[in-house]
Amino acid sequence: MMEKRLQLVSRLSRPTESKILFIVIDGLGGLRHPEYGSEKYPKGMTELQYANLPNLDRFARHELSQCGLIYPVRRGYTPGSAAGHLGLFGYDPFYYEAGRGAIEAADLPQGEIGIGDIIARFNFCTIDERRRVVDRRAGRMTDGKRLAKILNEKIPKINGARTKIISTKEHRGVFIIKAEVGLDPKITDTDPQVNGKMILKARPIVNPGEREDAQLGAMQAADIVNIYTSKAEEVLRKESSANAVIFRGFSTIPDLPKFSAVYCLNAAAIAVYPLYRGLARILGMAVLDGAKNFEEEVKLLNEHYDDYDFFYLHYKDPDARGEDGDFLGKVKTLEHFDGLLPQIISENSTKFGKGEFKFDVIAITGDHSTPSVVGAHTQHSVPLAINSNFMKGYDTTRHFTEEECISGLLGRLEGIELMPFLLSNARKLNKFEGFERD
Amino acid sequence: MMEKRLQLVSRLSRPTESKILFIVIDGLGGLRHPEYGSEKYPKGMTELQYANLPNLDRFARHELSQCGLIYPVRRGYTPGSAAGHLGLFGYDPFYYEAGRGAIEAADLPQGEIGIGDIIARFNFCTIDERRRVVDRRAGRMTDGKRLAKILNEKIPKINGARTKIISTKEHRGVFIIKAEVGLDPKITDTDPQVNGKMILKARPIVNPGEREDAQLGAMQAADIVNIYTSKAEEVLRKESSANAVIFRGFSTIPDLPKFSAVYCLNAAAIAVYPLYRGLARILGMAVLDGAKNFEEEVKLLNEHYDDYDFFYLHYKDPDARGEDGDFLGKVKTLEHFDGLLPQIISENSTKFGKGEFKFDVIAITGDHSTPSVVGAHTQHSVPLAINSNFMKGYDTTRHFTEEECISGLLGRLEGIELMPFLLSNARKLNKFEGFERD
Repeated sequence: MMEKRLQLVSRLSRPTESKILFIVIDGLGGLRHPEYGSEKYPKGMTELQYANLPNLDRFARHELSQCGLIYPVRRGYTPGSAAGHLGLFGYDPFYYEAGRGAIEAADLPQGEIGIGDIIARFNFCTIDERRRVVDRRAGRMTDGKRLAKILNEKIPKINGARTKIISTKEHRGVFIIKAEVGLDPKITDTDPQVNGKMILKARPIVNPGEREDAQLGAMQAADIVNIYTSKAEEVLRKESSANAVIFRGFSTIPDLPKFSAVYCLNAAAIAVYPLYRGLARILGMAVLDGAKNFEEEVKLLNEHYDDYDFFYLHYKDPDARGEDGDFLGKVKTLEHFDGLLPQIISENSTKFGKGEFKFDVIAITGDHSTPSVVGAHTQHSVPLAINSNFMKGYDTTRHFTEEECISGLLGRLEGIELMPFLLSNARKLNKFEGFERD
Repeated sequence: MMEKRLQLVSRLSRPTESKILFIVIDGLGGLRHPEYGSEKYPKGMTELQYANLPNLDRFARHELSQCGLIYPVRRGYTPGSAAGHLGLFGYDPFYYEAGRGAIEAADLPQGEIGIGDIIARFNFCTIDERRRVVDRRAGRMTDGKRLAKILNEKIPKINGARTKIISTKEHRGVFIIKAEVGLDPKITDTDPQVNGKMILKARPIVNPGEREDAQLGAMQAADIVNIYTSKAEEVLRKESSANAVIFRGFSTIPDLPKFSAVYCLNAAAIAVYPLYRGLARILGMAVLDGAKNFEEEVKLLNEHYDDYDFFYLHYKDPDARGEDGDFLGKVKTLEHFDGLLPQIISENSTKFGKGEFKFDVIAITGDHSTPSVVGAHTQHSVPLAINSNFMKGYDTTRHFTEEECISGLLGRLEGIELMPFLLSNARKLNKFEGFERD
């Protein structure tokens, strides 16, 4: 079932030639840091105020730009990264379920994981002769890929369900049970979480008043996991690096309405980190490969300019520096972005001005605030600037800062309110005449 | 069933050491009064602009404060006091039913009234030999307590349900049917509302298309009320001050989710008037006793500082003066509050400044506007200031007035959006990562 608001946008959207660029600067918003004040700001500045951002400021004060502040999830809530992005993409995060584990897993090579598959994180581990876990990380072993290959060959199916292990890094990996059968991931972990304890049995998670045997799909999934666990121990018995596997966090890849279908767009995502790529995959965006950092993302954007009409471009670094509590580090990442902005949005790759933008609508915002003075995501609203070739606004914002965005034309938005603005500005959203019978 | 948004906040809340003070200045907001202008405001000032409020202004412009405007119920609606408070406390007033009568009754001595009990207002009255009401107020008789005692002794039960009458003032009182049996308060009044008419029979309230006899609980309640009415007339037959009782406004004490449980708080309410105390009781707050006016409320707050981590402090007087249309009177109540503010929020009871607050988060707002130029509650938004020790903001508000709060960082909020802000600012709300299985 599509959430009602999304249904409506979907009914109103139409395909046009116009192009939208949606830039998410992760952790964009900040707070005043008392160590970085000035004459004008004796109590401290935010990273955006302190940084030298001539291009962002020029963008914000552009005659076709409008500014404001956005709460990606809802007023007052601190967004997790996935929830913040869901909100920005118009998917009510209070309605659509999307756990972080499942989203990251969704970035595995295409074909490996599909909608409805049950997935879990797993560790290769070391157990003693009584099946006590003596090392949950198997000494951070390095031959996970080899062991995974052996397991996949020796245990391709359990009780008719295809199983697969994908080694990711060191002892870590993802376990998949393909979705052909009616399984339910509502089962407990086998990972005891501490060394010295036995491997646990997977069991259906039963709410008070429910009977365990009523949960058929979960019982079947638990059986598969428990049988797999035993078989894996037989297969790995003679291995020196790890001799067992433990599982945690069973879930399914969520089945969300597809972004391009909902909005009549042909959308591409450009991001480096698994979470953002995974979410884009779940939303059915094309996820462009080949970038290892933001400069390479910008190159990808320019190479694929003709291929799509909506680009989601993700810049991770400001969030990372904010989380570190590194004010000047975050300032540098913002200045780095600023230096690349002309290459991102302008025909002229070294500067830009009136009429020079390559996209009909450009939005720049963040998925949450990560003030370095706090060193974590916070509930604060995030600066937002939208530039639209179609609309002459009357916004008077001069600098792309939290303080100036307070009095921007757009006011305060919640995440799910943004996509209609972008679509309308791109002339991709029909006039709303009222609900009519289909 | 908990409303979905409240469920979510509840899932994200966590207990911490931090303390929140939530001050509700009843009827806080005002409008420009043409008789009280100045050179700067030739068209008149609001009470907040006219009043001399050095402490409130200092609070609003404090480097850790953020301001805005709040619609306690929803944009455009004039809040009743209970609905406004419910909104501020995060209980959607469009979802949670709480009639004023039931709420006031909830402040009766604990043990008298419980969740699910049916209550009604009643009047002692005078009837003639044909059961026509000749005086609905029984000459504003003064021996209600004596008559109530007699009735409670002679009519302890009807049809197995315990009944009780509590005399409050003059001819007025509260009638209670205890909740042991499955009764429904959806019945009509027996009070004819005007003198000269017969006492009415209580009957189930039947919606179009419904059958009266389908409403078993309401039929039983109506029976009890009608039998009680007859018996009361027998008991009171020889009394000179009043010889009958009439009922109106049947309802139950609403069973709302408990504030402290929802938000992981240990909450106390400090208020003088029954409505606010009753609402706090229904929400399960500790309702502190012993104050007869606002100064004594402030004393209570300071005495109980160590005992709770959330304080709701209610100041009634500005609303009362606003309702009277008394501009200067309302100004005085605001100045009185201002003089007490240091004692309320500061370690130093005579002034305050940086780092001197006793609470980690302080919110000052109102449950509705009561402009003295109107003399009634209005739909206008209400000034809001939040101070948080945890977060450095970038709000530039200089004075706690309606006009300056327009350009505050918080923008415009609806009541139910406030609690997440307070909890997040107090670090009592986890990051929202998306819905995952419990």
